[in-house]
Order: sequence, then structure tokens, then C-alpha cells
Amino acid sequence: MKKILPLLLLASLSFPVVASAAAPTPASVLESVDLIWVMVATFLVFFMHAGFAMVEAGFTRSKNALNILMKNFMTMSIASILYFIVGYGFMFGSSGGGFIGLDGFLLSGHEDQIGFFVFQAVFAATCATIISGAVAERIKFSSYLLLTIAMTAFIYPVVGHWVWGGGWLSQIGFIDFAGSTVVHLTGAIGAIVAVMFLGPRLGKYSGGKVNVIQGHNIPIGALGVFILWFGWFGFNGGSTLAADTSLIPTVIMTTLLSASAGVIGSGFYSYMKYKRIDASLTLNGALAGLVGITAGTGDLSAIGAIITGLIAGVILVEGVQLLDRKLHIDDPVGAIAVHGICGVWGTLAVGLFAVDGGLFYGGGIAQLGIQAVGVLAVIAWTMGTTAIVIFVLKSAFGIRVSREEEISGLDFAEHGSSAYESSKSIFNENPNPTVDKDFGVGLLSRLDSLDRKDKKSKERTAQ
Amino acid sequence: MKKILPLLLLASLSFPVVASAAAPTPASVLESVDLIWVMVATFLVFFMHAGFAMVEAGFTRSKNALNILMKNFMTMSIASILYFIVGYGFMFGSSGGGFIGLDGFLLSGHEDQIGFFVFQAVFAATCATIISGAVAERIKFSSYLLLTIAMTAFIYPVVGHWVWGGGWLSQIGFIDFAGSTVVHLTGAIGAIVAVMFLGPRLGKYSGGKVNVIQGHNIPIGALGVFILWFGWFGFNGGSTLAADTSLIPTVIMTTLLSASAGVIGSGFYSYMKYKRIDASLTLNGALAGLVGITAGTGDLSAIGAIITGLIAGVILVEGVQLLDRKLHIDDPVGAIAVHGICGVWGTLAVGLFAVDGGLFYGGGIAQLGIQAVGVLAVIAWTMGTTAIVIFVLKSAFGIRVSREEEISGLDFAEHGSSAYESSKSIFNENPNPTVDKDFGVGLLSRLDSLDRKDKKSKERTAQ
Amino acid sequence: MKKILPLLLLASLSFPVVASAAAPTPASVLESVDLIWVMVATFLVFFMHAGFAMVEAGFTRSKNALNILMKNFMTMSIASILYFIVGYGFMFGSSGGGFIGLDGFLLSGHEDQIGFFVFQAVFAATCATIISGAVAERIKFSSYLLLTIAMTAFIYPVVGHWVWGGGWLSQIGFIDFAGSTVVHLTGAIGAIVAVMFLGPRLGKYSGGKVNVIQGHNIPIGALGVFILWFGWFGFNGGSTLAADTSLIPTVIMTTLLSASAGVIGSGFYSYMKYKRIDASLTLNGALAGLVGITAGTGDLSAIGAIITGLIAGVILVEGVQLLDRKLHIDDPVGAIAVHGICGVWGTLAVGLFAVDGGLFYGGGIAQLGIQAVGVLAVIAWTMGTTAIVIFVLKSAFGIRVSREEEISGLDFAEHGSSAYESSKSIFNENPNPTVDKDFGVGLLSRLDSLDRKDKKSKERTAQ
Repeated sequence: MKKILPLLLLASLSFPVVASAAAPTPASVLESVDLIWVMVATFLVFFMHAGFAMVEAGFTRSKNALNILMKNFMTMSIASILYFIVGYGFMFGSSGGGFIGLDGFLLSGHEDQIGFFVFQAVFAATCATIISGAVAERIKFSSYLLLTIAMTAFIYPVVGHWVWGGGWLSQIGFIDFAGSTVVHLTGAIGAIVAVMFLGPRLGKYSGGKVNVIQGHNIPIGALGVFILWFGWFGFNGGSTLAADTSLIPTVIMTTLLSASAGVIGSGFYSYMKYKRIDASLTLNGALAGLVGITAGTGDLSAIGAIITGLIAGVILVEGVQLLDRKLHIDDPVGAIAVHGICGVWGTLAVGLFAVDGGLFYGGGIAQLGIQAVGVLAVIAWTMGTTAIVIFVLKSAFGIRVSREEEISGLDFAEHGSSAYESSKSIFNENPNPTVDKDFGVGLLSRLDSLDRKDKKSKERTAQ
Repeated sequence: MKKILPLLLLASLSFPVVASAAAPTPASVLESVDLIWVMVATFLVFFMHAGFAMVEAGFTRSKNALNILMKNFMTMSIASILYFIVGYGFMFGSSGGGFIGLDGFLLSGHEDQIGFFVFQAVFAATCATIISGAVAERIKFSSYLLLTIAMTAFIYPVVGHWVWGGGWLSQIGFIDFAGSTVVHLTGAIGAIVAVMFLGPRLGKYSGGKVNVIQGHNIPIGALGVFILWFGWFGFNGGSTLAADTSLIPTVIMTTLLSASAGVIGSGFYSYMKYKRIDASLTLNGALAGLVGITAGTGDLSAIGAIITGLIAGVILVEGVQLLDRKLHIDDPVGAIAVHGICGVWGTLAVGLFAVDGGLFYGGGIAQLGIQAVGVLAVIAWTMGTTAIVIFVLKSAFGIRVSREEEISGLDFAEHGSSAYESSKSIFNENPNPTVDKDFGVGLLSRLDSLDRKDKKSKERTAQ
Repeated sequence: MKKILPLLLLASLSFPVVASAAAPTPASVLESVDLIWVMVATFLVFFMHAGFAMVEAGFTRSKNALNILMKNFMTMSIASILYFIVGYGFMFGSSGGGFIGLDGFLLSGHEDQIGFFVFQAVFAATCATIISGAVAERIKFSSYLLLTIAMTAFIYPVVGHWVWGGGWLSQIGFIDFAGSTVVHLTGAIGAIVAVMFLGPRLGKYSGGKVNVIQGHNIPIGALGVFILWFGWFGFNGGSTLAADTSLIPTVIMTTLLSASAGVIGSGFYSYMKYKRIDASLTLNGALAGLVGITAGTGDLSAIGAIITGLIAGVILVEGVQLLDRKLHIDDPVGAIAVHGICGVWGTLAVGLFAVDGGLFYGGGIAQLGIQAVGVLAVIAWTMGTTAIVIFVLKSAFGIRVSREEEISGLDFAEHGSSAYESSKSIFNENPNPTVDKDFGVGLLSRLDSLDRKDKKSKERTAQ
């Protein structure tokens, strides 16, 4: 009932202090400011999931768009709840030998850290969703969900504990301000392991050639990149964890400049290499610049950020080419190059460009060495644990859809529907609505009539 | 001219206090913090209208997409201005017997509450726009606008006065923190009444069958859901009306967890029921979880929020099926189930799960009873007033487009254009731009050539 | 290493003050509040670029969508970096005779203004991106980039210095709170000059007729308008440069009301003129209302804002018609009418409606005269400098793509790809991925196989 009070008061007052018996002090007001800064950042990081969803759906084929969108929603949702139940405790609970947190499950004993928890929860979901782009268009939905559970409940929180939870990497001085390694590299390593178990999409490397499978809707993919960039201001900015006037302007400036340099680096490098400014590489260049600055966003100068971003943009182009052409690792959206290769680059860049301690600022090679240790440790841990999980999943259930399902598209196979109107009606040529003979669920699905269609579909692909 | 001052100063200072003669005090700074929190929340609630527009356009047919977008823009615009002129006064003016506000029109005498006003103005628009999805694809644009005027100028402000303006429901202890009932249920009841007067879309329930009319662009619909979720953090978070460190973290946490649980609940329940994870039901599940937590977001625990969201997700699936299959109420986007049924659930959930006073927390049945009274009162008021408005509109002008207009699509009938390029040019097969023989307006419309086309269209449909 | 500290602390504390030796004072806390307000506004203004991208891509043809998206990303990126290197110095450096700033390059000596810099950097990019819509579908990418460089490094910063950097226009009392003239008119004048040198798109004014070239995806265009409106709250709101409780509520209210009035004005005026509510004019009406209120957002009353927006909406409709039908200036998205004509209107409206000094509030004609001087000076400067730049570009490299490239679309010509899946696969009829015989880059592009296709394309268009 006390919740009604402020609204009642508002009939006569403008912005009353809610139920505050004590007068505000500078310290209590600062606590409010810190909180709302981190909350706004939380909203922005949450919104990055819309960006991932648009990038992943736009850069793949329309027949798998619903499936990708479902993966993004499920990842966000499962990650939030699991991170509440166990992930936060593993990450920020009292340290067990610097390796893993051992209390704080269900936020028990950490009730005063709820604001910090929600910020960390949307981070955890980000790590998991990086995988979904790389495994798109052929992973089984159920296996993907089980992998997401392992990632957000255990694999990622352990890495997080090492670096941000007071664990061993933080103790040796490893710097990763907002997560080039903790979030992006961890996600990308999970992705590369999953892709190696899965194999490439049908037709991708057929007949000894590398074939191009074009995205179906680049405008929504580009919107996704803009949303990610927008959200990244919260990702990096919120990692200050306080409305710190000495730190936030630097973080926002380096984030803006590195992303801009990533666009320019990848755009012009693709022009030099292919005589044209490649759209998908340029869009990914923005993300490369963002991943690249994430570790050092609070420690680099403006010039350092621009150099880091330019190099990230070039690395991205070479990385995509290396993975696809040489290694035949099929990553439909370029997630491994963006988050993995540029995640490593960004982590090392701190050792090179940190104004305080970087090699090029006279700080010697020590920090760079520590950064390399962190990168290797996280790669080893994530590769090992993810491989075990995926091996078990593959042995127990299989992780890949059938050839027939892949050809017909996962939207139909997994969700019984499609992302777009059929050809005729999208152009208004079909005046009557679709009339199914069989009974439909209503709203938008047509699940009840699937058995019939499944049969037909199987007959068709079997021919 | 004083507005130039801070910018001039900025050539030499970083962030000067603007024209403040008096030195800041903790209380004055806290006022600033409270204000910017509510302003950020206002922006987010405003942005929810982009979410509604994408959900409603994506989940319906392409031939009606422009019309839906126009409704969304007009709703936002008309609501803002009318709420300024009369709505705010009816809602927050001095109470006339607990039923309606009687002063404050044009903000007169409330000039110190402008920040609070803009937050409430974007809320008012939200209530009205809930209707637009349910009546999509067949309502007359003019009648829709008149209904929106009634809703935002009178029907909604009265409900708001009862609960948030010091009216009778607030006096008996009814709790609706951010509007499960005030905003969502009110909008949904308006929608169900409108749909019952309108009838279903052509072909929806033809031949004794329930037919499926599929949405034309689910990816933008999914983006819309992400935008709504993002905006909801402002919707619930801003309803604290202050940068309250004891309340905001709880509100954001319960909002995140309930929405996540809604996705999981509807996704897995649709899987149990139909053997596949239905995309549209899962997307609506996020909204179900959000509507469900809106009333109790400040009063529930994390576990309470998860349970509320899970149940909302399941209720959503059953609600859609009940409305569509059993009651033959044609709601193209599921707005009535999401905002109405889950709005009721969320309001009652406060009586069950409120940490302070809920049935399951030892608070007895009193609060639950009060919640039920509020729900019933709002249903009765909104159903009655909306029915009168729509009855008058139907008698005076008609509320439904003609059969011919519905078949050809409202985009052409109401706006003389279409939302997408014609089939040929979208795939770059037509090198030349469309060349109309008749004179066009320019930019994008081709209104001047409509008479000719109208004639043809009518001839075609008449055959 | 100090960056790790707060995260370590967070295992035991909720929101600690980061490394602050000194206790907070009301003044230091207020500085934090001011900063985070301007940072949030910065993020919102950044996000406007997503809005511009969606509006411009949606309102043009699909064959040029990639090209437009690339222009938007490059504009943002180049502007940020150039504004850091030189633009900020020209705009906010110590004034050389009131005409141009002469120090502060690379932020040298302005290190304490980084927060202010990032806010101004995203503004600079906005000015440049206004041009990209008007020149869409026929400008050479390279020439566009060179024009963007001139605009963001020099032309815009000089105007900015005059008005916001302490230059001569600010000294005579010119008021432009958030940039109706500084940003929008400057961009629009650049656009009109560029369009006059470029000429109209092929087929636009063929055979003595004004032909309509329809946009390919209005739903994403409408989303773009919503994003712009959302971002505009930061554009106008952040221009307060401080969390000023006496100013921010007014700014947000006038922004909301004027945009709403713009929608209503253009919607109903298009209905009066053409018997239908035109979708593209109504969407642009929102932007017209926003541009119109930008100069006076802090100085107008609610009623003044509504009148300003209504008139802006009407002016927009007449402006589009005048430019397209009478003057045959081909502006695919209506940018010149929105940002130019309504930019002038908004600047003059301050002289009419400013509560303090406006003609209709008894302030005499003085302010209106000053506003007119500012408008004329900015038009003369921008027209002159842009014309020189474009003349040089045209003479040196040419600014327009070839007829063949324009017909085949800039996506293929400039970027070797297309924005959408080919016709067959978008509707899932093609079960196999595209298999190019030649070797592709991977990811999404097919640049390596372009030579072959280029040849074919040229053969085809030559026939």
C-alpha cells in the first residue's frame, strides 16, 4: 500500500522524495546517481540483444529467421533466470581459492546488490548469445538451449570470477575493463568449438569451393549493428559501476572513436583488397572496433583508441577470410572473427596502449604478458568445458538437425511457421487470407495442421 | 538570450551549473537526479510506441502495414496533445468525489509538474495504442481516431484518477504500481469492445473453421517485442517517480525476471501443447510476463516475479486459444490476451505474492479482494463507456471499411499507397523507376493518380 | 590495475564510490548528475543515426539500400574522428575574431571537456548525414565521403562557432537552442547544393512529368522516424548541458508536443489537399515538428510549441510539393523540406513565440530580425562553401555514378552485393544455398566473382 503514496502526493507535489524519513546527504544522493547510471546502462546492454537478433536474422537466410529470433529470446530469458539462481553466486560469491564463487546463490546474502546483479545478468546473456550467430541455420534448438544453460550457469561465471569476482586473474593484475575477454572471447570460443562439432552448412564448402550464402535482409542487420553500438555505450559506460566524472567521459570517447575507426579500417581495407567497400565487412568492422576497445576503454587515450579500432577493422577482414577460406570454419555472421579474434586483440591492446602501464607508454612488457596469460587461460578453460558439454550433447541427443530439416529451413522444422508472408500476399496480389482446411491455433501459428504438411514435406525431400 | 550563456561558458568550462544563483544543496541535487531518472523513463516509454508499431505491422498482412503505422503515429500525437489539454486535468486535478479530476487543464496551476506531465502523457498514449493492434486490418481510420480521442481524453484519465490521482480505488488500498490495470487492462477492454462491434476479418472464421491469417514480417515484430521490453524498464522503473535506491533495483529485477519467465512459460507450454515452440506465442509470452509484473513490480520478490511470469506465459497461450478458437474474437496480434487477461492476472498476483500483504506471504485475503474490486470496477467502467462511444460512432459513420477496401487492403484504400516496393523492383529486376502517366505528389505518394486507380480497383473487386 | 578495484569491492559492497579520496559535496555530486544527463543524451543522439539510416533506406529503392547504409555508417565514423582531430577546435577553440576557433585541435588543452566533446561529435555527424538522404540513389560514394569530410571538418564547425562557440551570431543575440539552424539548416543547404549539382534521378522528371519513385520498405522508414523522435529527446534535452530542473521539463514537453502537432498538421493537411492521409508526408511531419521546435525548445510555451509544430507540418507538405513539382529538385526522402524549410521556420518561430522576447509575447520585432540575420548568414556561408567543394569534386572526379550503375543500382555497382536475398530464396522455395562457381570471400560478400558479373551486367545494360 505504501506504493500508492507517492502517486497520491503527486497530485500536489512535483517530485517528492519517496518515503524518505532521513534528509538527503551528499553521499546518499551520490548513491542515487550511481544507481541510475548503472540502471540506464543495464537497459542499454539488454537492448543489445535486439541488435544481436537483427544482425543474426538479417545476415542469414529467411528460412531460418524465426529460429534465430527464438534463440535470441530464449537465450536472454534463460540466462537471466539461471544467472539469478546460480550464475551470480559462482561469479561474485566468496571465492573458493580464486577459482569460483561459492555462495550468493538466489542472491542470498547479497540482497543489497540487486542493481549490480541486473547489470551483470544482462552481461551473462550477451556472452551466450554470441554463440547463436555462429551456429545458425543448422543447430538443433534443444541442444542450443542446453549449451546456453551450461554457458550462463557455469562456464561464463567461472571466467567472470577469475577477472571480476576477485579470482586469480584479477590477483595477478589482468585488466579487462568491460569484457573483451570475459564476455566476447568466452562467447567466441564457445562458438568455435560448437561450430567445429557441428560442421558447415550444407553447400557451404561443396565441390572443393567456398560458396557464399548471402544474408536475406541486410537493412535489419545494419539496424542491428547500430543497436549494438548504441547499447555498447552502456556496456562499457556502465562498467564504471559509478557516475565517475573522471572515468566516464574517457570511456564514452574511446568507445565512439574505436568503433568509428573499426568502420573506417574494415571499409577501406576491404576496398584495397577487393576494389569495393564490402557492406558486411564494414558493418562487422563497427563491432570489431567495439570489441577491440572493450578491455581498454578506461585506460586508453583517444589516439590509442583510434589505432586499436583501425587495427581491429583490418584484423576482422583478414580473420573472416582466414576462418572461412583457409580453415573452412562456417560462421554465418562472422561472430568468431568479431568477438574472438578482435577480443584477443583488444585484450592485448591494453598491454600496448594503456596510458598507465602500456608498452608504448613506457610501461614495459609486464602488462602485455599478464594480458596474454589471461587470454590463454580463458581460451583453455572455455574450449575444454564447452567441448565436454557439446560432446555429451552430441553423443546423447545429436546437435544437428537432419538434412531434410536444414534444406526446408529450421523455421518450418522447429517452429512450424515462417518469418514472412508467402510470395503472393506480400505484394497484395492475394486478396483473401490464407484459408487452411485444417484447424489452426489462431493468432499466427498453424501448428495443428503441421502433421499433414510434415508428411508432404518429407515426401518432397525424399524424392 | 540566456540560453546561449551555457554554451559560451562551455568554451572554457566543462559542465557548469546553468544560471544557478544559489549553491546546490543535497535536496536540490536530489531533485535533479529524480528528474533525469523520470525523463529517461519517459523517453523509454515513448519508444515503446515504436515497439507497438513494429509488433502490429509485423504480425498483420503487408497490405495493411501503412495503415497500422499511421494509426500508431496518430495515436501518439493525438494522445499527447489531448492529454495536455484535458486528460491530465481529469486524471491529476483536484478530485471531484474521488471520481474525476476537475482542474489542471492545460496544466494550469500545475506548471511545476511538467516533468511528471510528460511521463504521464506517454503513458496515456500507450493505453490507447493497445486497441490499434486488436482492431487492425478492418477498422475505419476516422472512427479509430475518434475512439482514440475518447480514450485518451476521458476514459483512461478517469481510471487513472481512481488509482493514481487520489481517487476511490487508491483510497481503499488498490495497488497497481505501473499499470497492469490502469493502462493495460483499460486498453484491452477498449479493444475487446471494439472488436465485438467490428466483427472478425473477412475469411477468419469462414465455413465453420478458424483460419490462420499469418503475419507478413515476424522479424520486425520480434524487434518490436524487444523494443517494448526495453521500454518497459522505463515504464515500470519510471513509475517509482524518484531515483529511489531502495525501490528501483527491485523494480528492474522483477521486470527482467518476469519477462524472461513469460518467454520460457509460453515457449515451453506451446511445445507441450503443439510439439513445437511457437514463435508468435513465445514473443507474446515476453509481453505477457511484462504486463503480469507491472502491477506488482515494486512489491514482489524475485521468486514471486518468476512465478508470476511463468503463469502469465501459460495463461497467454490458453487465452489466445480461448479467444480465437472458442469465442471467435478476432484479435490479429493477441493484444486482448496479452494486455487484458495478463493484466487481470498481474493485478491479482499482487494480492497473492506481495511480500508485504500478499496471501502467500501471510497477508490474508484482504489485498486480493481489493485487487479484484479494482479489476471489476475498471472493466465495468471501460466496457460501458467504450461501448457507448463505439455505438455512437457505428450509428453515425460506420466503423468498418467496405468489403472491397478490406480485400484490397487499407493501405491503398485509406492512404493511396503501399508499404513495400512492387514485386519486380524489390528484387532489382526493374531497372527503371515507376513512371506514372498521371501527375504525382512527389516524394513518395501517388495520391493524384488515385481516382483512376480507385475506379479500376472497384471495377476489379466488383466483378 | 586500479580499474579492477571497484569490481573487487563489489563482491562485498553494492555501489561504492570509485577511488574517491575526497568526500562527495553537493557540487561534486551535481557534476556527476550533469555528466550522466549529457552522456545519456549523447547515446540518444548517436542512435538518431540508426533512424536516419532506416528512413533513408526505407524511402528509396531496394537496389540502393546497401549503399545508403554504408553512407550512414561512414558518415558517423568519419565525422567522429575528424571532429576530434580538427572540428571541435574550429568550433569551440579560442575565437579568431568571432569567425572560427583556432585551438583545441585533438582536444589539446580541452582534456577536461571530453564529455562535452562526445556530445558535440555526434551532433556534427548528424549535420552531415542529412545530406545523404537527399543525394541518395545517384551520388558517387567517394565524392560523398569527400563532401562529408569538408562538412564535418570545416563547414559545420564554423557555423557552430558563430552560434555556440562564442562567435559573432551569439554576440548579437541569435538564439538556436539545439540547432534548427546550426545543424538542420546547415545540413539541408549542403543537401540542396549537392542535389542541384547532381541533378535528379533517372526517370524522375522524364517526359515533362513528375514521376513518383516509391520507397521500398516504409515500415523500416517509419521505425526510423520513431527512432529519430526518440533520439531527439536527447538532441534537445542534452542541449541544456546540465541536469537543470528549471529547463529540462520544458524542453521535453515542447519537443513532444511540437512533434505530435507536426504529425497532426501534415496528416490532416495532406487529407485536405489529397483526400487521403498520406503516409510519407505524415511520417515526415513528425520530423518537421521536431526540426521546427529545435531552436526554441527552451524558450517556447506548450501552446507555442503546438502552434509551431502544426505550422511545420503544413509547411512540410507545401515544401515537398514546391521542391518536387515546381522546382524539380529531386530529394528522395524529403530532407530539404524537413531540415531546410522547417529549420528556417523553427529559427524564426523563436522570434515570434519566445515567452521572453518573442513578437507575440510583446517582445517587439528585434529578436525576429536577429533570427533572420542568422538564417541568411548560415545560408550564404553554407551555400558558398558547399558549392566550391562540390564544384571541385565534380571537376576533378565527377560526382555522379554512370547511367549503367544507376540503373543496375548502387549496391551492385559500389559494393558488389545486394541488400536482400534473391526472389526465390526469400520465400523458401530454393532449398539449396547460392552456389557460386567462382570463389567467394566468405561471410556475405561475393566480391571475387564480380568481374564475371560486371561483364555480364554491362553487356545486359548495353543492349
